[in-house]
Amino acid sequence: MRKVGILTSGGDCQGLNSAIRGVAKALYHTLGDSVEIWGIADGFRGLIEGEYKRMRPEDFSGILTLGGTILGTSRQPFKLMRVIDETGVDKVEAMKKTYRKMGLDALVILGGNGTQKTANLLSGEGLNVVSLPKTIDNDVFGTEVTFGYHSAVEIATGVLDCLHTTATSHGRVFIVEIMGNKAGWLTLSAGLAGGADAILIPEIPYDPRRVREMLEERARRGKEFSILAVAEGAISREESELSKKELKARRAADPAPSAAYRLMREINADSKYEMRVTVPGHFQRGGAPCAYDRVLTTRFGAAAAELVCTEQYGRMVALQSEKITSVLLSETAGRARHVPLDAGEVQAARAIGLCLGD
Amino acid sequence: MRKVGILTSGGDCQGLNSAIRGVAKALYHTLGDSVEIWGIADGFRGLIEGEYKRMRPEDFSGILTLGGTILGTSRQPFKLMRVIDETGVDKVEAMKKTYRKMGLDALVILGGNGTQKTANLLSGEGLNVVSLPKTIDNDVFGTEVTFGYHSAVEIATGVLDCLHTTATSHGRVFIVEIMGNKAGWLTLSAGLAGGADAILIPEIPYDPRRVREMLEERARRGKEFSILAVAEGAISREESELSKKELKARRAADPAPSAAYRLMREINADSKYEMRVTVPGHFQRGGAPCAYDRVLTTRFGAAAAELVCTEQYGRMVALQSEKITSVLLSETAGRARHVPLDAGEVQAARAIGLCLGD
Amino acid sequence: MRKVGILTSGGDCQGLNSAIRGVAKALYHTLGDSVEIWGIADGFRGLIEGEYKRMRPEDFSGILTLGGTILGTSRQPFKLMRVIDETGVDKVEAMKKTYRKMGLDALVILGGNGTQKTANLLSGEGLNVVSLPKTIDNDVFGTEVTFGYHSAVEIATGVLDCLHTTATSHGRVFIVEIMGNKAGWLTLSAGLAGGADAILIPEIPYDPRRVREMLEERARRGKEFSILAVAEGAISREESELSKKELKARRAADPAPSAAYRLMREINADSKYEMRVTVPGHFQRGGAPCAYDRVLTTRFGAAAAELVCTEQYGRMVALQSEKITSVLLSETAGRARHVPLDAGEVQAARAIGLCLGD
Amino acid sequence: MRKVGILTSGGDCQGLNSAIRGVAKALYHTLGDSVEIWGIADGFRGLIEGEYKRMRPEDFSGILTLGGTILGTSRQPFKLMRVIDETGVDKVEAMKKTYRKMGLDALVILGGNGTQKTANLLSGEGLNVVSLPKTIDNDVFGTEVTFGYHSAVEIATGVLDCLHTTATSHGRVFIVEIMGNKAGWLTLSAGLAGGADAILIPEIPYDPRRVREMLEERARRGKEFSILAVAEGAISREESELSKKELKARRAADPAPSAAYRLMREINADSKYEMRVTVPGHFQRGGAPCAYDRVLTTRFGAAAAELVCTEQYGRMVALQSEKITSVLLSETAGRARHVPLDAGEVQAARAIGLCLGD
Repeated sequence: MRKVGILTSGGDCQGLNSAIRGVAKALYHTLGDSVEIWGIADGFRGLIEGEYKRMRPEDFSGILTLGGTILGTSRQPFKLMRVIDETGVDKVEAMKKTYRKMGLDALVILGGNGTQKTANLLSGEGLNVVSLPKTIDNDVFGTEVTFGYHSAVEIATGVLDCLHTTATSHGRVFIVEIMGNKAGWLTLSAGLAGGADAILIPEIPYDPRRVREMLEERARRGKEFSILAVAEGAISREESELSKKELKARRAADPAPSAAYRLMREINADSKYEMRVTVPGHFQRGGAPCAYDRVLTTRFGAAAAELVCTEQYGRMVALQSEKITSVLLSETAGRARHVPLDAGEVQAARAIGLCLGD
Repeated sequence: MRKVGILTSGGDCQGLNSAIRGVAKALYHTLGDSVEIWGIADGFRGLIEGEYKRMRPEDFSGILTLGGTILGTSRQPFKLMRVIDETGVDKVEAMKKTYRKMGLDALVILGGNGTQKTANLLSGEGLNVVSLPKTIDNDVFGTEVTFGYHSAVEIATGVLDCLHTTATSHGRVFIVEIMGNKAGWLTLSAGLAGGADAILIPEIPYDPRRVREMLEERARRGKEFSILAVAEGAISREESELSKKELKARRAADPAPSAAYRLMREINADSKYEMRVTVPGHFQRGGAPCAYDRVLTTRFGAAAAELVCTEQYGRMVALQSEKITSVLLSETAGRARHVPLDAGEVQAARAIGLCLGD
Repeated sequence: MRKVGILTSGGDCQGLNSAIRGVAKALYHTLGDSVEIWGIADGFRGLIEGEYKRMRPEDFSGILTLGGTILGTSRQPFKLMRVIDETGVDKVEAMKKTYRKMGLDALVILGGNGTQKTANLLSGEGLNVVSLPKTIDNDVFGTEVTFGYHSAVEIATGVLDCLHTTATSHGRVFIVEIMGNKAGWLTLSAGLAGGADAILIPEIPYDPRRVREMLEERARRGKEFSILAVAEGAISREESELSKKELKARRAADPAPSAAYRLMREINADSKYEMRVTVPGHFQRGGAPCAYDRVLTTRFGAAAAELVCTEQYGRMVALQSEKITSVLLSETAGRARHVPLDAGEVQAARAIGLCLGD
Repeated sequence: MRKVGILTSGGDCQGLNSAIRGVAKALYHTLGDSVEIWGIADGFRGLIEGEYKRMRPEDFSGILTLGGTILGTSRQPFKLMRVIDETGVDKVEAMKKTYRKMGLDALVILGGNGTQKTANLLSGEGLNVVSLPKTIDNDVFGTEVTFGYHSAVEIATGVLDCLHTTATSHGRVFIVEIMGNKAGWLTLSAGLAGGADAILIPEIPYDPRRVREMLEERARRGKEFSILAVAEGAISREESELSKKELKARRAADPAPSAAYRLMREINADSKYEMRVTVPGHFQRGGAPCAYDRVLTTRFGAAAAELVCTEQYGRMVALQSEKITSVLLSETAGRARHVPLDAGEVQAARAIGLCLGD
């Protein structure tokens, strides 16, 4: 009998349930009655506190299209993992204890960058870990794509589409704040797909004057409306030169609740343009996964099950050159995949004349 | 030869083009070559400034699903209609002049409450006016439903759907700000359809303590997440008792950019709950109309054409008891249809135990 | 303690779960701990065979958007209800027996026309019955609208939308077969909303020559493509004059599997046009209900719960003049609501020049 | 001044307009006023017959989301290219003549496998050709993905999703016929994404008994419903062994209009199962492209423009290892990319226990 635990950690996204289903269906198909799958509640919290339950094949039916995660999730910051908190609990030891108490042969972990770090830590502690790369930010190192990403792009693009018709009718400027604090992939792809006129991402600090110039140049060509796609983590060149501490202080004192509101103030001090802000927020990470993500998660899930069956631990499944493979957790942990300045999407955006704020 | 002008005025919404198409197809089908249709640019602005063009049958092809308005629109506040501005132009006289210069036999006007007032004014001045009720707010007096409304409900509901899966996975409270400054229909229907736990609308001032109690009661029943649907114009009981002037001053001094941010502050001063704000904004009024609105606008459009053909002017087409009819502009102008406290949707919300904030 | 049974019968459609949820939430909210809800499996089959289970409040959570029915359904033709079959079971007596054995105070039944007949029969036998009108066909007598209908219209319209872009690119004729054996509401609304060039419904037998003439007239105007929306039950004038028996024999001998294929043969014997058939089939009745249906079912559900609480039995909830009301089962049973020749949708279709085949 | 012609050929699909826009925007951005773009009508037909028109920058605005192709398309079979028909026209010579008459510096061609062959032929004749790989079938050799494919997968998946809820409620077997005469990519991905229980593709001839066994095995596990995803070109093992001529004769005599109807007959001769057929048809290739295809086409379009600007002709843009590149037309022409038996999607399908009919 092989006992396999499974947990989902960090912010949720589309495709978590589809990936869980893929892992489970492949394990049952390969191992039949000689596998037991155990669901761990709310990510690492359940592993720390020993909250889990035996899953049955029917628990994995009908969840392919379901948003969120049937296992629950929680954020357990990596930097607090080794901190002994007020309750005196060493979280890592607690997780090892639960793992042993459960008698697990392997632990399948679904999560983003922070989660991969913890997965690697647990692997280093001797746990048999296999992980899957999940995040709408698409910034996990070692894989070309993470699941959740394409679904979020579809949603954010849909928002831009709807704004287009209202923008053209009225001659307005819309600022859409798209998720992504550190990585701009989502804003970049949605901005391209949604026909935005400017795309501002964390990797390319912007000069508000450049954005304003673009608006004025469009107005000269008779285009009275514009759509600006702005990542949550977009930052002006000026702010990008501040120290972390200075930036934090400035943001704390800033009444603008987020990047879109800051940008609006920066480029429209004279109220020349009629501007509107849209903040789709967590809407972007919910709902059914798109077909692309369902296929991807089924492939990732099957690959993770195979790693378990062949006892190849300490690895994260990945997509490279459109093929499923896996990478060492020790190679991916602690690294992130930001948008390089020569990314294909950046080149295409520049080629068709989009403003990237620089 | 009959010459018919057509214009769209006020905020855009789904179904404008579909309604324009309905009017045009029915006019062409009834009158054949003996009708000319003229499109007036950007609502009343085009009528004031004399900007218009001859439309051809092919201009109305392929626009059934198109969001926005092919004619353009603008906001021309009713209260400024009679004001002679710095340019010395009397807007009403200018519109009458354009109407005569164009040699129009009739003018078809698509718009919301403000537009109906101006339509009535023009009708009173002797212009042959027929109007259609358009707004996502569903608050035009004399008709059970306006076009745009159901499309916007579908979009806002989709946002709530996506948040549900992320809310349940994380145990969070989401506040979604839905359009509607004065009327709560959109928030009410989307809140019901999207399974919101509280629905706050302008017509029912809320007590923040009631919302907080609901959150706590849900937590007691093990429901760690909640979704609050809040109209842009939702107002706390306390603020509802201020004079207009006092309220304006208070809002001007308030760093919170809108209702959702105010509510978050009011109910979460102790930061007990992890809260997130979503502001879908104009996203709600863009994109293709839903099928309901396409059928409705085709019916409205055909009815407006019939009023033109039978020379019944000074009327707005309307839906009453599921039948197409029309009402006198003089009866609808200056009135609005707010959510009555015994509306069927309110009763249903109370019957299933939803919090309405009171 | 009040015990309430609930069952869904007949073909499934969107909104069943949303309606079940509405009934349950309203019962729990009104009666609190003094109500027990029992779910009966697979419609009348479960009542006949005594298969049911106690439901818990959590069973009704998270089902608002779920297609199908959590209770299961089956077709139990009314005409077989009184037939003692080979097993010697009198179905009506069996249902009464189960009802008594369960100790029910009331039975809530969700279904279409056939179901309403059986509901009325059971009501006549002394059972406390409340029903809700469900069907994508929109043909239940006594209510302006049934739930499921608007959701199906949205789906069928989406199919027509997609075909439009491919039809225009290629200059082809597409025939889309839309559900509806006896009632044409769905085809009519989807056809209007999807911009079909011809709409053929059971209530208006068609002459294939009229359809062909329309194609040729369009070709003369340079429109090389056309889209024909055809109800499953659309019938040519010639076939409509056959006796039931003759028609049955002819259909049995006809290799064309359905209406769309028959129409293609009738109008394109000379293969002049490049034609393609699309049969969306049950796709039209699946998936999440649209927002309209979710609001409607919540209102219907709350109204059904109120009838139960106030012991008004033998009634079906209904929408009349946009208000929720109820009608006697004895009034609705055995009747159907077909498209009248002067329906608003028919008038609108004629007004804009659509071909209805006559 | 550089003159660039552009044409779209073959079956239409999502993303054609988005790709055209990408090419045009990148040409205008790079070459400014020194480029003229000419649109050729209806694919090679317009080139043969000399039908084309000068495009303006505004012609490429607002088409990002539009299905179909603004240029029109037609099927011009490669095998007829060299045939001198009854009108005495040598099509290839006619195309060369038009190209010269137009004074083109380059010709950008969007199309599938057949189109690439003709593009290669024209390139061999000395025309400066750059092409883009377009088809929902995803079977163009030399690129990992074609545009249109992912959009079609989303639509076909949506159909499967809706059928799931109705299938589970009723205990039925649904057969969905998905586009793809020779390549199974679309059926394979949609089948995986839509949770089909069997996936039958042209590359893997099926044994009806295997499908039937799967149904029976599912019934044994209490699963009363099943969904079968069948490619248009799916073929039984028996038929796959016929000669082309024998197969053609058999099909001509077969009253079943397509693969789904044939399969139904093969596996349900005893009518044990309640089966329903859905034929989404051209619905799958229409409507707005998904975000993935919009990004891809923008990248492809920009790359094609760069090939034109740098005078690298005789090439098709392609995606390889997630990077944009290009391949020689002479390498891709005449070849197709079928689903290999060890494709990642096939492996994943087998890993989770799906029936592939073999």
